[in-house]
Amino acid sequence: MQQYFIDAPIQATMTLENADILHHMYHVMRMEKGARIALCGSEGACYEMEIESLNKDNVSLKRLHKLRDIKHTVSITLAQALIRKTPFELTLQKGVELGMDAFIPLETDRTVVKINAKDAQKKHARFEKIVREASEQSRRSSVPEIHGSTPLERLDLTPYTHVFMPYENETTLGAKDAFQTLDKGDKILLIIGPEGGFSDREIKSLKDKGATSIALGPRILRSETASLYALSALSYELETR
Amino acid sequence: MQQYFIDAPIQATMTLENADILHHMYHVMRMEKGARIALCGSEGACYEMEIESLNKDNVSLKRLHKLRDIKHTVSITLAQALIRKTPFELTLQKGVELGMDAFIPLETDRTVVKINAKDAQKKHARFEKIVREASEQSRRSSVPEIHGSTPLERLDLTPYTHVFMPYENETTLGAKDAFQTLDKGDKILLIIGPEGGFSDREIKSLKDKGATSIALGPRILRSETASLYALSALSYELETR
Repeated sequence: MQQYFIDAPIQATMTLENADILHHMYHVMRMEKGARIALCGSEGACYEMEIESLNKDNVSLKRLHKLRDIKHTVSITLAQALIRKTPFELTLQKGVELGMDAFIPLETDRTVVKINAKDAQKKHARFEKIVREASEQSRRSSVPEIHGSTPLERLDLTPYTHVFMPYENETTLGAKDAFQTLDKGDKILLIIGPEGGFSDREIKSLKDKGATSIALGPRILRSETASLYALSALSYELETR
Repeated sequence: MQQYFIDAPIQATMTLENADILHHMYHVMRMEKGARIALCGSEGACYEMEIESLNKDNVSLKRLHKLRDIKHTVSITLAQALIRKTPFELTLQKGVELGMDAFIPLETDRTVVKINAKDAQKKHARFEKIVREASEQSRRSSVPEIHGSTPLERLDLTPYTHVFMPYENETTLGAKDAFQTLDKGDKILLIIGPEGGFSDREIKSLKDKGATSIALGPRILRSETASLYALSALSYELETR
């Protein structure tokens, strides 16, 4: 069933005029009266809705029932160092599929890519589009929040119960040793460095602030692969037993 | 340390004339006499080598010592249904980083993308290049083998001790229940369907031949994401405790 997100609460009957959604329903999917969609509202819940009428300008919907809420038992924020466009956007799209709840683009000592002030708004809109589409595709009931680009030294670690930082020189603590102690309700921050890793200064500062470095297996992973590995491992550990 | 693969065994002293490697060493990395590289040979082992002389046409190397062998305790073959070029090539590159040992492109009932006979050789050469580069980057000691495009009904399941097939309608067996029973020396085949999944006929046939369907968490994953998730989970379960 096709899923859409709107920026308003879901009502018993409602008419939508959102151009993107209407284009998709009318022109792309060629839906008709009687067809059903999943519609997710600003309250963070999704409902099965039936189309009562549809033309190219608006659609009238009737609410049928609430859909199953797919949620991790923990909350996961991914703070991903800025890297080249293609792998960076991959971490956004796959991060949504793999269960992240929030995303923070990070500026680090070895970050080569920068988001300049002039492009910041356009970039943010593009990131939001990627995340929204991935949320629809993977049938999430809410769209993960994307923060503005943040320098590592300004990243606030205090809202989280656990802060993990994959680090290739870490030889003692494996991801499994770290993740299998997690509990329902934990707030997890994953901090992923750029190509070339964090600087020694950054590693020390993060550890001083309470971050735990972990190893993600014996191979050298690219930055984006480390993100996908860590998110997959969290889902595997917490969602598939 | 930069790593390269050659199609010959490593000797105590050796001179290479491989154009790709020389271009990379001489023009891209601008290496000089005395610099060290990791060189992996056809015997499946890598050695630290010192450059004794280097010009644009050949390089003379002296073997120093064997490097640590990074190997899963199990062998993993990824049979990935053919999907669009970008995500398909992503499964190849990331599959290498995440520890697969062999790769089989699969033709299934719902496979839209085909490799026609005319392009097969060119495609295979491209796949080999992606896998070789990813093996160098992730410091693997051997390059995973890529099989030719194979129709699902001709896929031989008998060489494997375990055959797993992620399947979104599977609600009973989680990946963790399945993977935590694995032992050293197991030969694992992961079968990943195309966008749209396997047909009912294919699911039945695979189960009849001994494949086990598993669930990879509650969200709907794209085909390529399912591959990355399953490989990450295997590494997490077997390599990080």
